Amino acid sequence: MNILITGAGGMLGRKLIAKLLAAGSVADRPITSMALTDMSGLSDLAPLGRVRTVVADLCQRGVATSVIESRPELIFHLAAVVSGEAEAEFEMGYRVNLDGTRALLEAIRKLGPGYCPRFVFASSVAVFGAPLPEVIDDDQGLTPLTSYGTQKAICELLLADYSRRGFIDGIGIRLPTIAIRPGKPNKAASGFFSNILREPLAGAEAILPVDESVRHWFASPRAAVGFIVHAATLDTAKLGSHRSLNLPGVSATVGEQLEALKRVAGEGAVALVKRVPDPQIIKMIGSWPRSFDARRARELGFVAESSFDEIIRVHIEDELGGEVVRGPCP
Amino acid sequence: MNILITGAGGMLGRKLIAKLLAAGSVADRPITSMALTDMSGLSDLAPLGRVRTVVADLCQRGVATSVIESRPELIFHLAAVVSGEAEAEFEMGYRVNLDGTRALLEAIRKLGPGYCPRFVFASSVAVFGAPLPEVIDDDQGLTPLTSYGTQKAICELLLADYSRRGFIDGIGIRLPTIAIRPGKPNKAASGFFSNILREPLAGAEAILPVDESVRHWFASPRAAVGFIVHAATLDTAKLGSHRSLNLPGVSATVGEQLEALKRVAGEGAVALVKRVPDPQIIKMIGSWPRSFDARRARELGFVAESSFDEIIRVHIEDELGGEVVRGPCP
Repeated sequence: MNILITGAGGMLGRKLIAKLLAAGSVADRPITSMALTDMSGLSDLAPLGRVRTVVADLCQRGVATSVIESRPELIFHLAAVVSGEAEAEFEMGYRVNLDGTRALLEAIRKLGPGYCPRFVFASSVAVFGAPLPEVIDDDQGLTPLTSYGTQKAICELLLADYSRRGFIDGIGIRLPTIAIRPGKPNKAASGFFSNILREPLAGAEAILPVDESVRHWFASPRAAVGFIVHAATLDTAKLGSHRSLNLPGVSATVGEQLEALKRVAGEGAVALVKRVPDPQIIKMIGSWPRSFDARRARELGFVAESSFDEIIRVHIEDELGGEVVRGPCP
Repeated sequence: MNILITGAGGMLGRKLIAKLLAAGSVADRPITSMALTDMSGLSDLAPLGRVRTVVADLCQRGVATSVIESRPELIFHLAAVVSGEAEAEFEMGYRVNLDGTRALLEAIRKLGPGYCPRFVFASSVAVFGAPLPEVIDDDQGLTPLTSYGTQKAICELLLADYSRRGFIDGIGIRLPTIAIRPGKPNKAASGFFSNILREPLAGAEAILPVDESVRHWFASPRAAVGFIVHAATLDTAKLGSHRSLNLPGVSATVGEQLEALKRVAGEGAVALVKRVPDPQIIKMIGSWPRSFDARRARELGFVAESSFDEIIRVHIEDELGGEVVRGPCP
């Protein structure tokens, strides 16, 4: 199995690589080679066995063709500019999120008949925007209200058309907001959902820019990597013409997140969360989905956490070696 | 009022130009200049007063910038490769229908703050694909099953994002299938819906490639031009974030079309329709919408015909000088 991963230097990419290398195979087929692309952040991944790294911009002429040349049978397309950045940097968002994806799809198509790789596309619940029902079902239409969501929705449409035409065997997975993101905050508008847990769990302050009543849809990084690998192996004949899926997750308010934090790490941890309302984030988040009935994905075997307490426990196990810094009592 | 019309050489473009020149104004604002673009077919339009014609490909470097340079306040973007051709010629469909639209939108955006033209985009009911409810309402999601429908759906998403960002004041109108198209058959897969009426009305044979039970959604060219002009003048604040609309029309089966033909032109006309099933058209049409509850558009003042008999009468008035060739009795 020859694999290509774009956006490999990102948080999900790195976790996916670790999981694939540990398993050594995908659906019982041994991994023979793995190519990784990203704009940067691949230097520590190069020494891994069977792995070729390409630090490159997929939009630049020839790059997509070059990474597709070896005919990877399985492509994980994770490369993206995140939501806040795509909103702030209009051109960059379209260039990376739309043109980059299209360059990759075109490179695949142009290799011609007989080449039709499995193409796993990391989409987002940001393809949906207000007005939305309280619980979104599998028939909800694409109504993005951000440039990021627009770009993801466009790529889903391309994925479906390229699959229908037989150029790729595509599957788009609308990842819930990932929490708790490890590492430093990124420029995603949704970043605070992780910050308000990760930082207090490490004994540090965090800023909450929205009201505690804000409800959103979550899965852990561990669950997200599980989704991505499952998408690589499931029988896409079951998808029919609708190639993109809402995934299971946990619906929780910010208040419920903080209650879970209190149960796991005490009052002191919650006291580290400072309220600093941010009108721009409040406006963006207001149009985002709150909960899903992801029946189709569950029937296809996708599995997520069942509570926010579980999401926090996953973070403590995977990122903190099982230990939490308990903050001082307020 | 400075106006730009793309795809001006097409059937709708020519009818729109005639209507605008006859009126001399749009929403009581005198038309001061009109630029027309198309790949060809503009030579007879050049001598019209106040009209500049540009025979050019919008995708070619600099063309979109050049036609936007004079800052048209009203843009009718009608240029498109039709459905059958977009399905047969994958690259051309994406180049014209997606890249051409994007080039235009980017040229507008790059003129910078202070320029935000009304942008009327001719979309299509092909943005919807099976499985569909018998009657489609205004909340139906984008689920195209053709490359043409995919390209139109992508452009609708761009239109919404560019409008939200304040680069254009966009409105997308999902035109019903236009019947009866005058002139020669084009490469639209839906062309037979017109051919089976237009040709017999002129005493000629026509081919019916699908079953008489096939139901579809129609408006006359006159109604379509009315939609386009209405879209140029209505208050887009009423659209909210959903910038594209299903339009009113007439839902009819092929059988009902032929009954209307019989009422207007007699049995002899119907006998000129030859059944030659075409599996490719049958497959495409099978995924197309059959009927709409276009309440939102009707509330916004869009008006269509109320029966297929009326659609035929419009054709006879507008194209045949009010007269029909009655075929011989079978």
